Amino acid sequence: MTSSDKPDRAADTPDIPAAPTGVAAMDWATAAADPQYRAAVVDLLGALAYGELAAFERLADDAKLAPTLEDKAELAKMASAEFHHFERLRDRLAEVGEEPTAAMEPFVAAYEGFHKQTAPSDWLEGLVKAYVGDSIASDFYREVAARLDSDTRALVLAVLDDTGHGGFAVEKVRAAIDADPRMGGRLALWARRLMGEALSQSQRVVADRDALSTMLVGGVADGFDLAEVGRMFSRITEAHTKRMAALGLAA
Amino acid sequence: MTSSDKPDRAADTPDIPAAPTGVAAMDWATAAADPQYRAAVVDLLGALAYGELAAFERLADDAKLAPTLEDKAELAKMASAEFHHFERLRDRLAEVGEEPTAAMEPFVAAYEGFHKQTAPSDWLEGLVKAYVGDSIASDFYREVAARLDSDTRALVLAVLDDTGHGGFAVEKVRAAIDADPRMGGRLALWARRLMGEALSQSQRVVADRDALSTMLVGGVADGFDLAEVGRMFSRITEAHTKRMAALGLAA
Repeated sequence: MTSSDKPDRAADTPDIPAAPTGVAAMDWATAAADPQYRAAVVDLLGALAYGELAAFERLADDAKLAPTLEDKAELAKMASAEFHHFERLRDRLAEVGEEPTAAMEPFVAAYEGFHKQTAPSDWLEGLVKAYVGDSIASDFYREVAARLDSDTRALVLAVLDDTGHGGFAVEKVRAAIDADPRMGGRLALWARRLMGEALSQSQRVVADRDALSTMLVGGVADGFDLAEVGRMFSRITEAHTKRMAALGLAA
Repeated sequence: MTSSDKPDRAADTPDIPAAPTGVAAMDWATAAADPQYRAAVVDLLGALAYGELAAFERLADDAKLAPTLEDKAELAKMASAEFHHFERLRDRLAEVGEEPTAAMEPFVAAYEGFHKQTAPSDWLEGLVKAYVGDSIASDFYREVAARLDSDTRALVLAVLDDTGHGGFAVEKVRAAIDADPRMGGRLALWARRLMGEALSQSQRVVADRDALSTMLVGGVADGFDLAEVGRMFSRITEAHTKRMAALGLAA
C-alpha cells in the first residue's frame, strides 16, 4: 500500500488500524503469496531474531558490571527474556520454512557494528544502553506492526509485550543522577552516541535490504519513499529525546 | 545421621532411599526446626543459586566464541536454563524467609576463583568446561539429594532434571577430536585442570562452612567426618574420569 491509503488510526489503539486493510487484513498464508512481502517478513524476523540474540549477549556481558548480586540477577533476567524472544522468532522462521541462520546472517554486521561502537564502560552506561535499546526496539516494533499480516503482527506484538525492562534501568539511572548531578551530562552524551550509532547502522540496513525497507515505509513494490524512511527515523528519534528528557538527560 | 545408619538404596532408584529415614523422611517445616539443618540448607541453596548465576554468566560469555549462529544459540539456551534454575533457588530462599543475597555471598569468592582460573581460551575448551561443570553439578546434586528433607529434595531434583546440556557438548567435542586427534591431548589436560580447580575451590568451601559440610557428608551435629568428605570427592572424581574416557579424553 502507498502512504496515501493508510487507514486512520483509532485513538484508543494507536498501533493497529481500527479496520485493517491491505496486508494487515490478511493472514500469513495469503500475504506470503506475494514473494516481495514474504522476503520482507523473512528479513524482518531475521533482523529481530539476531537483534534479540545480540541483546542477550550484551546484557549478559553487562551483568558483570553490576554492583550488587540483585542487580546482576536483574540484568541476567533481561538477558534471558531476550533469549526467549530470540527462540520465538527463530522458531517462527523455521515454521514458515526458512533457515533461521540464513535469515539472520545479513544483519549480523550491523548489530556487531553497533555493539562494538557502544561497549559500555560502566554499569550506568550499560543500563542506559539497555533502556535506550529496549525503547527503540519497542518503537520500531510498533511502527512495523501495523504493516504486517495478522499472524506476523501477533508474534511481533507478543514479543514486544513481553519487554518493558525499562523500569529497572530508569530507577537506577535517576538515583545515580540525584546522587551526583554531573553524571547527567556524561550519560546524556552517551545516550546521544547510542542513538547516533543506532541510526547509522539502521540506515546501512535500509540501504542494503530493499524488500524490508519497502515494507517498513509502506512503500510500493518497485521502490521505497526515502522521505518516509526519514520520517520514521524522525519519529523514533523524537520519542527517544522525550524519554531522555524524562530521565533527566538532555538528549 | 551417621554414615553407619544410611539406608540401603533400591537398585531402580539409586538416588533416593527406598524408605526414607531421618531428615529424608521429614518435610521442610519439620526438618528446619533443627537450626543446624536449617543453616546447612540455606548454605546449600545459596551455593547452588550463586553457582547457577555464575554458570549463566560464563556460558553467555562462551557463546561469543561460538563458530556458528546455531552454536551461539545453543550456548545461550544453556545460559538461559541456568538462569531459570537460579530463579527457582533464589525464590525458594525468599520463601523460607532468607535474604537470597546474604545466602549467596559466602560462595561468591569460590566460584569467582574457579572461573577466573578456568577461563576457556577457545570454543572447545568452553564446551568441555560446560560439560564437565554440568556433570559435576549433577553428581553433586545426586550425592546431596538423599540427605535432604522432602521439600528441598524435590527442588534440587527438579533443577537437576532440567539440565542435561551434555549431549550437545559431547557431540561437538567428539567431532573435533575425530577431525584432529591431537586435540584430544590438549582437551584432556584442560579437563584435568578444571577438575583440579573445582576440587580445590570445593575444599575451601568445605573448610569454611561447617553446617553445610556436616550435612553433605551425613555427619553428626558436632562435627563432620573428613574421611567421608574425601570419599565423596573420590566418587565425583571417578565419575568424571569415566566420562572423560567415554569422550575420548584420557583424564
